[in-house]
Amino acid sequence: MTHIVAVGGSDAGISAALRARELDPNVDVTVVVADQYPNYSICGIPYYFSGDVRPWQALAHRTHADLEATGMHLRLNTLATGIDLAARRLTVTDHDGPTTIDYDELVVGTGARPSFAGIAGMDRLGPEDGVHVIHSMGDTFALDADLERRSPDSAIIVGAGYVGLEMAEGFRGRGMHVTQLQRGPEVLSTLDPELAATVHDELVAHGVEVHTGTAVRGVEKTGTGLTVHADRDGEKVTHTAELVLVVVGVRPHTALLESAGARLGAGGAVVVDEHMRTGLPHVFAAGDGVVTHHRLLGTTYLPLGTTAHKQGRVAGENAVGGAARFAGSVGTQVVKVFDVVAARTGLRQHEAESAGFHPATTSSAADDHKRYYPGAQQIRFRITGDTETGRLLGAQLTGRLGTETAKRVDTYATALYAGLTVDQVAELDLSYTPPLGSPWDAVQAATQAWSREHATRPLEVTR
Amino acid sequence: MTHIVAVGGSDAGISAALRARELDPNVDVTVVVADQYPNYSICGIPYYFSGDVRPWQALAHRTHADLEATGMHLRLNTLATGIDLAARRLTVTDHDGPTTIDYDELVVGTGARPSFAGIAGMDRLGPEDGVHVIHSMGDTFALDADLERRSPDSAIIVGAGYVGLEMAEGFRGRGMHVTQLQRGPEVLSTLDPELAATVHDELVAHGVEVHTGTAVRGVEKTGTGLTVHADRDGEKVTHTAELVLVVVGVRPHTALLESAGARLGAGGAVVVDEHMRTGLPHVFAAGDGVVTHHRLLGTTYLPLGTTAHKQGRVAGENAVGGAARFAGSVGTQVVKVFDVVAARTGLRQHEAESAGFHPATTSSAADDHKRYYPGAQQIRFRITGDTETGRLLGAQLTGRLGTETAKRVDTYATALYAGLTVDQVAELDLSYTPPLGSPWDAVQAATQAWSREHATRPLEVTR
Repeated sequence: MTHIVAVGGSDAGISAALRARELDPNVDVTVVVADQYPNYSICGIPYYFSGDVRPWQALAHRTHADLEATGMHLRLNTLATGIDLAARRLTVTDHDGPTTIDYDELVVGTGARPSFAGIAGMDRLGPEDGVHVIHSMGDTFALDADLERRSPDSAIIVGAGYVGLEMAEGFRGRGMHVTQLQRGPEVLSTLDPELAATVHDELVAHGVEVHTGTAVRGVEKTGTGLTVHADRDGEKVTHTAELVLVVVGVRPHTALLESAGARLGAGGAVVVDEHMRTGLPHVFAAGDGVVTHHRLLGTTYLPLGTTAHKQGRVAGENAVGGAARFAGSVGTQVVKVFDVVAARTGLRQHEAESAGFHPATTSSAADDHKRYYPGAQQIRFRITGDTETGRLLGAQLTGRLGTETAKRVDTYATALYAGLTVDQVAELDLSYTPPLGSPWDAVQAATQAWSREHATRPLEVTR
Repeated sequence: MTHIVAVGGSDAGISAALRARELDPNVDVTVVVADQYPNYSICGIPYYFSGDVRPWQALAHRTHADLEATGMHLRLNTLATGIDLAARRLTVTDHDGPTTIDYDELVVGTGARPSFAGIAGMDRLGPEDGVHVIHSMGDTFALDADLERRSPDSAIIVGAGYVGLEMAEGFRGRGMHVTQLQRGPEVLSTLDPELAATVHDELVAHGVEVHTGTAVRGVEKTGTGLTVHADRDGEKVTHTAELVLVVVGVRPHTALLESAGARLGAGGAVVVDEHMRTGLPHVFAAGDGVVTHHRLLGTTYLPLGTTAHKQGRVAGENAVGGAARFAGSVGTQVVKVFDVVAARTGLRQHEAESAGFHPATTSSAADDHKRYYPGAQQIRFRITGDTETGRLLGAQLTGRLGTETAKRVDTYATALYAGLTVDQVAELDLSYTPPLGSPWDAVQAATQAWSREHATRPLEVTR
């Protein structure tokens, strides 16, 4: 019987295993999981700390039993340490020591690891010192135990990306004082500052102390707690708190594939083709450890759970002999921060310029639904389009919870997938009822604003 | 100076006038409006009766002053009665009697009128008898005055389409007993009964007395109130109430163009091409009085406000010498009924069959966001795709308010516009954060359910 082995119990590995079993119930599938928490929703961890999700077991996309019911085998607490390409044999280590697993096809989804971006002290300090990261269930339990044990009143969050923002909300929900330190000029650096400022305001409105332009250099344990050293406006500054959480990004975890001879590309991630082949014989890879095919950028590195699911599914299909292709990301992302939703898809002005487009970006705002119906609220937009071709290149939007901002970005994401022009967005037949939209949806009001500024098809008046 | 005349003060006429002035501020634009309420949101009238919108003036998309600020001229309380094509002259009647308006280009947006589908008595009974329709601000004032004068405790609503359902909510909000009579087997006949039943349940849960399979034959005024005569299951039945509202659809109002020699097509509407030309020299038409170009059906009749806006804009652009084309509808519609949102786009099974496709339809349900995060609710779907080409043909969905159902249908609408396959929907890079979505959005879970049943690209296992 053919034996597919997936390494990694998170989105990519599990998606590959599920797809392989779905397509070919005769195939034998083993998933090698480093810890004992396969298929957990890492994106959901902040909501455990906010108290929205309890118990922690609820974070599992599927239970252990659900997974085994598909017929896949799980090898928990098992670390993959080496690949023998010629023998098609994986070396793993578990509580009994090293052993091997033979495979016919291998799918590697070892993901990413927290990055510390040169912050001194992170090599020495850990959960026992009150210094935390959030990237696994193990990290979650360590932080949870620390909160339980010490009930700290204050936390410094280094980083103001998705996880940092969500954890700020989580800690505030527990009544902690939160200081959020962000290197860049504004929080949520994946959005233009004009829109990310909405998120900043929301943080402040909920009592988060936000410091932008603050480059953290080190974390130090002192007699009274933890001190974070940073540079701000050319000055050295310090912040102190009882707990420090460092969430400044991730780097691909490539050791297993690298040692087997895989090539590294964008962002130091493993190079794969659109079939998720690594170039190593019978070895596929997917998820946060591999490069990302992007429909507008070509190959880049953009680790996201949605992408890992799709890539894993492709790898699983191809591991059982399929010919699936990963259609590519357009970089769609959304985050809820307290009562604000911030979303983006496609490229921003500077990203589009770097990619060789001729972009222009237009800001606008439009009501989520007809103003005469109660509760209308503005959604703010930034639309980026190509001034030479008229092609839609990207959209950013922020709105209050309840404005359907998260699913409005999907209209743009679909338009980007299909390669539509900015003008074509206004041609879309979008839904309208006064409590939930407008005859020209807000999404279209925003592209019409772009078109007014950057019309590529000037009207030829023939009279 | 070139003079553009638009007939009709609703979506199509005003959109044409706005677009003409936007593109060419040197053009003279006159809008001939039958009443004194230009640019009112007819879709919003039910929310006036529910009390959500007050005062009625708030229903104006733009105020009289806003409109005149664009430089257009409004001729209110003026009825267009004839077109002299050779002289390019419109005959109108206002309080001073008949007169004429010369034009260079004419845009006709006379809309539709309530249909009574052979209900006896509707030719005799009117607001003074407690029998109402809802299609204009005049109708609104008449109903409002009747409610004010008599404070009726009970109403029969004949029809359970969008307006009928919204008015049921409006009347219930005023504490009235509402009996809703629907000819078809289920309310909201624009959706499959499996999903429309959700709306039915919501009506009943809010105290609306719903009778389906009830074909109304006549309305009669009696000593004690109003009696509606109907057939149900082959039996004659009657219902009585103090007020009757008849909302069973509309028919195109074509008299002006018909008398000028325009050709009628689908649904008895005026034939126009994609440039909104009627074929009559220098005469464009748009809105509920004209046929609808549909991207999947070709030419049909599907009067909707969103379409009227788009068609009017095209007509206005072309009236000043442009070459705009109406890109076509895909039949996207949404309605909120109490706390349920019901949406559709594209074709249903029987519509697709009639149009020559080889459709199959799959039902499914998926959570609006990750179940572990509080408040997750199921959205129910029916996806229709073509089994020969794999092309997405249509989607229907119902969900509770707050599930972003209204904007989720837009993803399908955009996919339909672009001609995507059902499988390609699963390739879309849609937004995800646990409080607002899933790694595979509900929209994609639904198309994957279709693909599992009707895979057009079976996996070729090459091993």
